[in-house]
Amino acid sequence: MPVNLNPPVAALPVAGVKLGTAKAGIKRENRRDLLVIGLCEGAAVAGVFTKNRFCAAPVIVAKQHLAENQGIRALVVNTGNANAGTGEQGLKDARETCAALAGLINCNASQILPFSTGVIMEPLPVAKIAAGLPSAVADMVEDNWLNAAEAIMTTDIVAKAVSKQVAIDGVSVTVTGIAKGSGMIHPNMATMLGYIATDAAISQPLLQKMVSEAANRSFNCITVDGDTSTNDALMLIATGKSMLPEVNVADSKNYHALLDAITKVAILLAQAIVRDGEGATKFITVEIEGGRDEAECRKIGYAIAHSPLVKTAFFASDPNLGRILAAIGYAGVDDLDVATLKLYLDDVLVAENGGRAASYKEEDGQRVMKQSDITIRVALNRGSANATLWTCDFSYDYVKINASYRS
Amino acid sequence: MPVNLNPPVAALPVAGVKLGTAKAGIKRENRRDLLVIGLCEGAAVAGVFTKNRFCAAPVIVAKQHLAENQGIRALVVNTGNANAGTGEQGLKDARETCAALAGLINCNASQILPFSTGVIMEPLPVAKIAAGLPSAVADMVEDNWLNAAEAIMTTDIVAKAVSKQVAIDGVSVTVTGIAKGSGMIHPNMATMLGYIATDAAISQPLLQKMVSEAANRSFNCITVDGDTSTNDALMLIATGKSMLPEVNVADSKNYHALLDAITKVAILLAQAIVRDGEGATKFITVEIEGGRDEAECRKIGYAIAHSPLVKTAFFASDPNLGRILAAIGYAGVDDLDVATLKLYLDDVLVAENGGRAASYKEEDGQRVMKQSDITIRVALNRGSANATLWTCDFSYDYVKINASYRS
Repeated sequence: MPVNLNPPVAALPVAGVKLGTAKAGIKRENRRDLLVIGLCEGAAVAGVFTKNRFCAAPVIVAKQHLAENQGIRALVVNTGNANAGTGEQGLKDARETCAALAGLINCNASQILPFSTGVIMEPLPVAKIAAGLPSAVADMVEDNWLNAAEAIMTTDIVAKAVSKQVAIDGVSVTVTGIAKGSGMIHPNMATMLGYIATDAAISQPLLQKMVSEAANRSFNCITVDGDTSTNDALMLIATGKSMLPEVNVADSKNYHALLDAITKVAILLAQAIVRDGEGATKFITVEIEGGRDEAECRKIGYAIAHSPLVKTAFFASDPNLGRILAAIGYAGVDDLDVATLKLYLDDVLVAENGGRAASYKEEDGQRVMKQSDITIRVALNRGSANATLWTCDFSYDYVKINASYRS
Repeated sequence: MPVNLNPPVAALPVAGVKLGTAKAGIKRENRRDLLVIGLCEGAAVAGVFTKNRFCAAPVIVAKQHLAENQGIRALVVNTGNANAGTGEQGLKDARETCAALAGLINCNASQILPFSTGVIMEPLPVAKIAAGLPSAVADMVEDNWLNAAEAIMTTDIVAKAVSKQVAIDGVSVTVTGIAKGSGMIHPNMATMLGYIATDAAISQPLLQKMVSEAANRSFNCITVDGDTSTNDALMLIATGKSMLPEVNVADSKNYHALLDAITKVAILLAQAIVRDGEGATKFITVEIEGGRDEAECRKIGYAIAHSPLVKTAFFASDPNLGRILAAIGYAGVDDLDVATLKLYLDDVLVAENGGRAASYKEEDGQRVMKQSDITIRVALNRGSANATLWTCDFSYDYVKINASYRS
């Protein structure tokens, strides 16, 4: 079960964004598996995508359509099939999906962005998607984010939606986001799909900058199993329907106020993905501080967060904390002096001077290990950089879920 | 159970090497947990060690003693405790172990190399080791490799020993090796201990070169869980007791004949570690060919071999082979053209042209996946370099073993 994560009970509508879902029977009958996100004219869209060289057909097509810059009018997302590892046919299928939706909402196919998630290397059932689109379009309303969050789930147990309202210069601005993903989660990025919309007006170049910065502090700081998906995308939509003047200066107060709100939503969505990590029973925050630069902090953080030995020890609530020291040691920071670092589990000092701390008592470690939310903190004491990552433990159920995903 | 791996039934003695074991009760009562390997005067010893920054106390001490170059007279190995993450006290404990053995066999402490494997961050029970050493020394005989292989096991199910005899210039030369390790296995290296001895005479610099070259083709080509231990070591011993003249020219015929025999023993030991990988049910060979250089072949091979999604799919015998494509895609080879590579499972062509091969049938994939020995072959078609790695699948039992290791 997800770790300290409840299903969302509400998500604020964003003026200018309408969402509609349908049951297209893509992989299984009788579940919402198709989502259309319709955008008002003039809405700006920017995104960050997977860096996997085997990026999926919809990722290629979405990037092309964004580059054509004709104004995006809708996003279409299917679950149950990733349309990845599908070669030329996959590209045709993604384009055909866009064309089918464009016909229904009277725009060009290049004004549609396609997204897919699910099994890799199976042909996309375009006919089923096309048949489902009319009911998804008919379903489109602004207050529909929770159904949308459900429609994009794959192995997720809980839908993920987060809303935030902030006052900027006395004007109320809404930020609402949904995301899916629970395995194959890693920076750059995951079978992770995220859609965040705001009614603020943001110029296109700043929107692109903002989505990159928000992703770097959120989705690019999580890992479940270290695998990076072929399909990941985080899209940021700005409809401009609020009264706030367009944000078009990068270092302005309003830019930072908006970025802050968007980043907070993105962090909560990213953490929700980890809390719902496949088979997760613990939510683990990894804080690395006092490094020479952020890169080395992230390197050490990920070595810990990716270690199956560390993750199985947390699953067992076993303070076998030498495994964390081993992970720090092999992270690849070649001049690291292990005698000067300190390792904490929440507030318990575990190791210093290259070994177990004199004050450390097994029962203190045991007490923290039994919690469902745990912070591993490493003070490197060699600089002022830091990094925070989020991960989960590694349980029987991870193997179970992934050994039977297709069946 | 180990994958197609039987316990060794015999191992040839190597003239000049005597082995003795004892039950010292280090972690558990009544099991062989202490090994002494005694060397004849004049034996040469070289080794490669873990690159983990948290390298264990015995690793530090063994390197110092090798550097002092007084002639190594014995190696002492304990299981049950790694003496890692133990700070200054750990170094004292390792030195005390050497001193205790030196007193028994009349040499200097710096002529002893210490090795430990087991739990990290617990103080080494030196008193128990010292108390066990006299019976280990009393037990020392040349024909004792199989007991030695047993005495160094931790979570290993099967002891690992390999022998080979070759004729070089008409002279018979023996190579015998033992190894332990089944989890925390990764290049550079594993909780992997390996000891290979030959009765050939090899000059010290060539012995060092030989052990590095053999390790690069064997122990540095395996992975179980991607973790790199604090204690790994592979030691190569040359006693010079055979009639073969000393090998002291790097590119000579005899050098290569010996290196070849030693590498073959090392590969079989390394593969045995994977076959006995924690919870393993499949032995997987990953062959990457046609790369620009060996480094990129290894990068792609390790991305596949480390992916929990790939490994759980193999455990389930589920030909969800898109996961292999995804791993190839995120391996970090930035200019990889996925449209030109081919993916095979044994002889079955699975993917080409960026997607599933037209000739591929699910039942062919399924048939191969059900085997216990499987080869994943990726033809990159962009150069002439290649690399071969060995790994295993990822099962419930991996989690079970590692969630309860200390209990």
